[in-house]
Amino acid sequence: MALGLDDIRDAHRRIRSYIHCTPVVTSSALNEMFACELFFKAENLQKVGAFKARGACNAVFSLDESSLKRGVITHSSGNHGAALAWSAALRGASCTVVMPENASTIKKTAVASYGAKIEFCEPSMAGREGTVARLMEEQGSTLIHPFDSEVIIAGQGTAALEMLQQMEQSPHIMMTPVGGGGLLGGTAIAVKPLDSGIAVLGAEPEAANDAWQGFKSGTRITHSKPNTIADGLRSTVGVRNFAILRDQVDDILLTSEARIVEAMRLIWSRLKMVVEPSAAVPLAAIMDQPEQFIGKRVAIILSGGNLDLDTLPW
Amino acid sequence: MALGLDDIRDAHRRIRSYIHCTPVVTSSALNEMFACELFFKAENLQKVGAFKARGACNAVFSLDESSLKRGVITHSSGNHGAALAWSAALRGASCTVVMPENASTIKKTAVASYGAKIEFCEPSMAGREGTVARLMEEQGSTLIHPFDSEVIIAGQGTAALEMLQQMEQSPHIMMTPVGGGGLLGGTAIAVKPLDSGIAVLGAEPEAANDAWQGFKSGTRITHSKPNTIADGLRSTVGVRNFAILRDQVDDILLTSEARIVEAMRLIWSRLKMVVEPSAAVPLAAIMDQPEQFIGKRVAIILSGGNLDLDTLPW
Repeated sequence: MALGLDDIRDAHRRIRSYIHCTPVVTSSALNEMFACELFFKAENLQKVGAFKARGACNAVFSLDESSLKRGVITHSSGNHGAALAWSAALRGASCTVVMPENASTIKKTAVASYGAKIEFCEPSMAGREGTVARLMEEQGSTLIHPFDSEVIIAGQGTAALEMLQQMEQSPHIMMTPVGGGGLLGGTAIAVKPLDSGIAVLGAEPEAANDAWQGFKSGTRITHSKPNTIADGLRSTVGVRNFAILRDQVDDILLTSEARIVEAMRLIWSRLKMVVEPSAAVPLAAIMDQPEQFIGKRVAIILSGGNLDLDTLPW
Repeated sequence: MALGLDDIRDAHRRIRSYIHCTPVVTSSALNEMFACELFFKAENLQKVGAFKARGACNAVFSLDESSLKRGVITHSSGNHGAALAWSAALRGASCTVVMPENASTIKKTAVASYGAKIEFCEPSMAGREGTVARLMEEQGSTLIHPFDSEVIIAGQGTAALEMLQQMEQSPHIMMTPVGGGGLLGGTAIAVKPLDSGIAVLGAEPEAANDAWQGFKSGTRITHSKPNTIADGLRSTVGVRNFAILRDQVDDILLTSEARIVEAMRLIWSRLKMVVEPSAAVPLAAIMDQPEQFIGKRVAIILSGGNLDLDTLPW
């Protein structure tokens, strides 16, 4: 059966005592600047600094005891790796994160700080998948995919569910960035049954536009060579995710690298929030096409806040 | 009659529909690092990006109609200038901010963006005060002092009042930075009658230690030459503020410039909050003397988040 609102609600009940109900913040200055009402759900303040804690937590708390004993594994080197390590630790399960040898020290440290084992692999998709397959065989561990998974999508959808409860009036539009499609897919599944009048939009860098290409053509892109500062959005949209996007998302907007940096800086200076480039992509898309947002209430999920403070892009 | 808890409650009723009830945020990583429970009230997310919106709003909404018509004036070039400009605009009152000719463009722009008139003066205390006196005479306007004023102190105290309501359990310690003493004084007046067991601590840069010197000696320091990165804390403690600090504050802790930068970076990276150096001073003081905080619940007011993103101190 297809994933539905009840799955998001179940996920929320499962994870709510472990995650933060992150605040929704606003800025009069930004509202004036864009002649609309912008609401930002601050998932940069979430556990592990990103919404990824929601999906990973839902996945780990959905496992039975015997699977749990054999541990979990993933090959994301970004926020999902840290989120899975954190979630596994909550249930005392062992966690292995397969990372490319050239992953940044910051990412390695984050994953290790939550108590996960790091296994290095060749820096290629084949290298990652081969290492994961070998370790799953050896450990009997369960793969928790970063986005192409129903429990993950359901977990990510809880951010939108919370946000609608937190807002006094329904938004006209809800926007999230799109990388693998976990957050955008979960958002559509949470929002549409509650109020089909809310437009659900994805925002994607032009330099990593596989979701947009697939959405416009109706056929999922399986290979892409993304090269964007928004490092959380370099994944290719998953199979399950693409089916949801195609059927339930209203549009995907593209934006440029320069605009992403500009939007990121605006969020830092006006919202006083440390966000990573990926989190700024929806605001960047609004900056590119402000006309269609005028007079609207726009709900945006700020996806995360993990980045190296020594290498800011301005 | 001396300022009391009822004044803070009145102030809160007066301003609550204009200000944000800012969130209280936490970080498991920081709690582990310091072996205590830290709670941060995010006044960097407040209107105009600083707690100063509270006092200024209370002052403006305490004025009668005839005073209001003649406008308000101040000589703070920092957050108070922007806060007064914002507050005056809420009541349609004219506002003049006297600023030194060498004030930064960012500060001038902030004040002007809220619709205040800027009058330039010589960059000295005599220059500021002379210009203010002349303009008050000409305009019949009311001086809203940045800190040495009961309505300002009462307004600033509302941050602590809210924070105690937001926390499930009372803190053992409440800490704020201390510059002119508006926030620390208001905090003591709000907290002590509610729970005299809560220790109220100020945190001050060693390089601007006039509050600490006065507190330790029992005599207010009237002249100081502060030279700290914490630009919000360069003021000399006010007369009214000093009386409250001496009688009701438990201690003032000092910290170094290097530690302030380190604490600021920790708040950015762990709390994902953009804060100005002044806001990091309490955490810096904890980093210097961690022993006395072990096992305690510590409530900290993050005073503001206004700074130039192009000149970060790391």
